[in-house]
Amino acid sequence: MKFHRHHIISMKDFTRDEIDYILDRAGKLESLAKSGRSDILSGKILALLFYEPSTRTRMSFETAMLRLGGNVLNLGSKDTSSVIKGETLADTIRVISTYSDAIVLRHTSEGAAQMAMEFSSVPVINGGDGAGHHPTQTLLDLYTIKRESRLEHPDIAIVGDLKYGRTVHSLTYALSLYGANITFVSPQQLKMPDQIIDDLKTRGAHVNETENFDKVLNNIDVLYMTRIQKERFPDPTEYKKVANAYKITNKQLVNVRPNMIIMHPLPRINEIDSSVDNTDHARYFQQSFYGVPIRMALLTIVMGADI
Amino acid sequence: MKFHRHHIISMKDFTRDEIDYILDRAGKLESLAKSGRSDILSGKILALLFYEPSTRTRMSFETAMLRLGGNVLNLGSKDTSSVIKGETLADTIRVISTYSDAIVLRHTSEGAAQMAMEFSSVPVINGGDGAGHHPTQTLLDLYTIKRESRLEHPDIAIVGDLKYGRTVHSLTYALSLYGANITFVSPQQLKMPDQIIDDLKTRGAHVNETENFDKVLNNIDVLYMTRIQKERFPDPTEYKKVANAYKITNKQLVNVRPNMIIMHPLPRINEIDSSVDNTDHARYFQQSFYGVPIRMALLTIVMGADI
Amino acid sequence: MKFHRHHIISMKDFTRDEIDYILDRAGKLESLAKSGRSDILSGKILALLFYEPSTRTRMSFETAMLRLGGNVLNLGSKDTSSVIKGETLADTIRVISTYSDAIVLRHTSEGAAQMAMEFSSVPVINGGDGAGHHPTQTLLDLYTIKRESRLEHPDIAIVGDLKYGRTVHSLTYALSLYGANITFVSPQQLKMPDQIIDDLKTRGAHVNETENFDKVLNNIDVLYMTRIQKERFPDPTEYKKVANAYKITNKQLVNVRPNMIIMHPLPRINEIDSSVDNTDHARYFQQSFYGVPIRMALLTIVMGADI
Repeated sequence: MKFHRHHIISMKDFTRDEIDYILDRAGKLESLAKSGRSDILSGKILALLFYEPSTRTRMSFETAMLRLGGNVLNLGSKDTSSVIKGETLADTIRVISTYSDAIVLRHTSEGAAQMAMEFSSVPVINGGDGAGHHPTQTLLDLYTIKRESRLEHPDIAIVGDLKYGRTVHSLTYALSLYGANITFVSPQQLKMPDQIIDDLKTRGAHVNETENFDKVLNNIDVLYMTRIQKERFPDPTEYKKVANAYKITNKQLVNVRPNMIIMHPLPRINEIDSSVDNTDHARYFQQSFYGVPIRMALLTIVMGADI
Repeated sequence: MKFHRHHIISMKDFTRDEIDYILDRAGKLESLAKSGRSDILSGKILALLFYEPSTRTRMSFETAMLRLGGNVLNLGSKDTSSVIKGETLADTIRVISTYSDAIVLRHTSEGAAQMAMEFSSVPVINGGDGAGHHPTQTLLDLYTIKRESRLEHPDIAIVGDLKYGRTVHSLTYALSLYGANITFVSPQQLKMPDQIIDDLKTRGAHVNETENFDKVLNNIDVLYMTRIQKERFPDPTEYKKVANAYKITNKQLVNVRPNMIIMHPLPRINEIDSSVDNTDHARYFQQSFYGVPIRMALLTIVMGADI
Repeated sequence: MKFHRHHIISMKDFTRDEIDYILDRAGKLESLAKSGRSDILSGKILALLFYEPSTRTRMSFETAMLRLGGNVLNLGSKDTSSVIKGETLADTIRVISTYSDAIVLRHTSEGAAQMAMEFSSVPVINGGDGAGHHPTQTLLDLYTIKRESRLEHPDIAIVGDLKYGRTVHSLTYALSLYGANITFVSPQQLKMPDQIIDDLKTRGAHVNETENFDKVLNNIDVLYMTRIQKERFPDPTEYKKVANAYKITNKQLVNVRPNMIIMHPLPRINEIDSSVDNTDHARYFQQSFYGVPIRMALLTIVMGADI
């Protein structure tokens, strides 16, 4: 298969074949992601437009671009750029796309990347648009599962804020393409929306829901933890109760499958106790690193570079 | 002609021959400005000291430097640099000039670039100093007129805030070197200062003034729009009236010259309606791009590089 | 001697032989520090994590890395990075170390670099940790003394805030390895702590203390000035009196040794009058530049590169 796509906006745009193509390409680039520098994107400039704080996404894109021999242009914070102030996103994109060979956009508004795509003369990659999509996060999650566990029919539990968590919705859609057996674990207030559950079932995923964390822990290949944000709870006591219930420590790992891996998009607040960090199950820092080869793969694809 | 200049401070320092030399050099670098990377400034470091928000100027300088094979050092925002806090500009410049091969300075105070020049051991380029000068903007404006219209005796209307608009004064001086026929269009409160009008006439420019926008529209080669800032008007009703009168939409373009081009230094607020964007007359985004070849030309000149 | 060290945390970790090794290496790299670019660290990425404002340290590290052919990754200000917000330093370091080949950390808390070292998979260089250490500053101070004066048994006066001044404590420890004859000059409130004085004597330094600035001025090779911060004084009148007493102007330089040099870690407030800048004694800007070759030396050492 030959896969060319100018823009990376939403996971819903991808077929399973296309996802496999991206993951394969990331695999070929992984050793370069760790160290060294190639000439694959020599002479190319990647513009990073981050209208919202980010470190992991921004820095891994920068590292990806540098390892590929390219260069990076940072819009910088709101304080240092006049563009952001009085200018429409459309105008900013039109200007920046004349200075660069591709744009990564993170924005607070859902649909921003889609809109940017229409005004850009160069490829746009969605680096997260508010409550909308964050496709590069989903792709690095899939890559982590492929490299550290199994992506075909995995037994996976997704834990935490499933209602508002932006990345979780994209991830579950993608997992349904691989026949995943998904268990959603969350407090009642943060349940996965029913419509998504129905969608997933239609697409062939096996889906269960529970509020009881401990029940699922011993029968899964992948434990995907997410942040539970205090702001979701009007009552702080309620938050505390929930935060404690959906937290993992090394004591709970006694009877899990030996190859079970624990993932987290990071930053974590206290969903994963530091006692877990040195166990064989922890993969969240490795997962963070996998952002580099995935973003290298995407950069080479949108800029049409052979590897 | 061989043109060497260590510092770029004000348009008033340049003869017409020197300006032509810069525009010619930009022409030779234009295709490289769009894509690719050369070794012309390989091993050189450009320090960007922006004490005032900017995106267009900063990013186009960065792109220019990267395309020429050089590297960029950012002072960053006021929050992240101790230099700005307690240190005099003179000391900062003395230090930064030991870390770099050239400096671009944007500052809030008129005369800052001139002062920086005296303390720097490397070339200084003025990236805008308060109400003072912004020579690289003027040069890209001239380059746009040359590339997209004609620079010899053009019929040009300059519209908007002509009293406070920093770039407009430099631009009109430069245009007078090319025998331009200039019409100034502005509300009474924002009229071009009389002294500048007199100066321009002495230098050989043909100058007219009017408050009536529509009257001039059909007899010009170049329409140069500028921002009208709310802050200039004590009375918001008055601002609204003026802002509406000095605004252009595609409906006003019916009887203009077929090759008439519309320019704007950007960002625009609402001086140019988005209905104009897709007409053949719009050149403001192209103009923004031309900042790259112009800045490439200047960087190679001040660092003494052959192209 | 072959000197390999993975992390640079504190001057107290170094023997005199090791310091000499670093200074020698800086000497070999000095001409490259001034201009040009090599391939010594080609393909390497240096991450800069500055949790506290800094310009001199950050920019000289960037210049050092670029001159060596490497690239730089900036965490950016607190506003633009989510990592800093809710995440522990340990987690941030674990993540960033997967994106880079070495990390420079500046942090507000004493001991931060030591802690970072434990969680990093790549070398960590301490770029200053609160009231703790700032070894790269001390090394560039030593290099300045070596290059501009003499490092063996120098007569040196250290003036200003000796109680809280972070860099001064490290510097005096290092100077004791070279048999320095040190005179501490400070107001009573900002005296060098007795314990450090005792330590220095044990290590073989000759140490004197005085409050009288003028008395020592004519019998030294090196005058090391430091900032006296207003915040240390509850009474502003008291501050003013002290600030005026520990200040140098060119009038005081009439009878000093002809080769006496004046140093300052910068930024200066008004400890050194600008009338001193053009005398033969001023070395503080040169000192600032020497940060580049010293940091180049350290970067090549921690990343195991031959030069």
